[in-house]
Amino acid sequence: MPARFTLHGIFLSGPVYKVALMLSLAGEPFDYVHVALREGAHKAPAHLAVNRFGQVPALVDNSNGNSLAQSASILEYLADKLGRFGGATLMERIRAREWMFWEFDRLAGPIYRSRAAALGFRQFDPAVLAQYRTEGEAALATLQSMLAGRDWLVGEAVTIADIDLYGVIHYAREGGFDIDALPELAAWEKRFKALPGFAEPEALLPKESRTA
Amino acid sequence: MPARFTLHGIFLSGPVYKVALMLSLAGEPFDYVHVALREGAHKAPAHLAVNRFGQVPALVDNSNGNSLAQSASILEYLADKLGRFGGATLMERIRAREWMFWEFDRLAGPIYRSRAAALGFRQFDPAVLAQYRTEGEAALATLQSMLAGRDWLVGEAVTIADIDLYGVIHYAREGGFDIDALPELAAWEKRFKALPGFAEPEALLPKESRTA
Repeated sequence: MPARFTLHGIFLSGPVYKVALMLSLAGEPFDYVHVALREGAHKAPAHLAVNRFGQVPALVDNSNGNSLAQSASILEYLADKLGRFGGATLMERIRAREWMFWEFDRLAGPIYRSRAAALGFRQFDPAVLAQYRTEGEAALATLQSMLAGRDWLVGEAVTIADIDLYGVIHYAREGGFDIDALPELAAWEKRFKALPGFAEPEALLPKESRTA
Repeated sequence: MPARFTLHGIFLSGPVYKVALMLSLAGEPFDYVHVALREGAHKAPAHLAVNRFGQVPALVDNSNGNSLAQSASILEYLADKLGRFGGATLMERIRAREWMFWEFDRLAGPIYRSRAAALGFRQFDPAVLAQYRTEGEAALATLQSMLAGRDWLVGEAVTIADIDLYGVIHYAREGGFDIDALPELAAWEKRFKALPGFAEPEALLPKESRTA
């Protein structure tokens, strides 16, 4: 019997990790389809049928056939369907959504791309990399200041905002950013990693398709 | 008597335009607070009280005192409160949200920054500008292909996805991107500009604070 959710992704992807992390934190098993990006599988009809943008992640809800795209939007969907991490009130949900748009605007690009360059997955002009460095450091400094005196980004408990941002911050060290120089951020990261159900990408994302 | 909504912004900002456009399309008058970015007003306590990120836009809902941040999140809030442009079904709402995250990920950065450079508002290394050019053209090509055979991005009617993306596309020509070479996109733009309540940024965003 299939799991309720099928995640389509690749093990190296931060956005895919976000979705797997949410499912793991919620205690929800999932089937997994490996999308071979190097072979162009993300642009093949089978994948476009579950993600019209030709990107990973895609999440299929096998209970109703819905196919979902865009990691942060998938987190909102899962928060609604699973009743977890969506915030204690409507305003907390809205604050979490604001954080996720901030993350897409300011954090993901510079962090993910600095990491991709450091690992040799992508090549950028040195001036472009310098721009990512400046922008990434600015975004991390914002996070550091906004976490002062708080355990979580929104309200009193972990929300999809934390899950979304952790799915970027996890890769910051690989991108050469010094998280430990930012004590509020490092403390939040430590709290996050202590959550029940937390696991590293290597433990959540296989290198091949599998059933739950 | 104040209008229901107060928009805090600056007339040059695309994200501020998005929110003003949504209000105008919905026939909703709004008060306006000019935020003098050059003088640092966005980092002053009065503005941080309405936008914790120190950014524009901010929208205050005077009916309940809520202060909202992040343009796309504000569009979702307004869709809920005004009952307009939120999509005909829950899945349409989700598709619109996916488009907005795609926009933040792929479209806004290269278009807005190319425009800011062209107008002399910001300076970037030529290699950085070349990167924005490549990324912007790729995003516009995606839009062109995904609009084929459709009037609007989601479903059969205009949604916040169209409003959000139009608020970027409006500035693409100033950034040196050739929209007219992309006929599906140009036709969508023309349809959008024919909507009742549509107005250019210059008509919606004053250079000083004003009441509705």
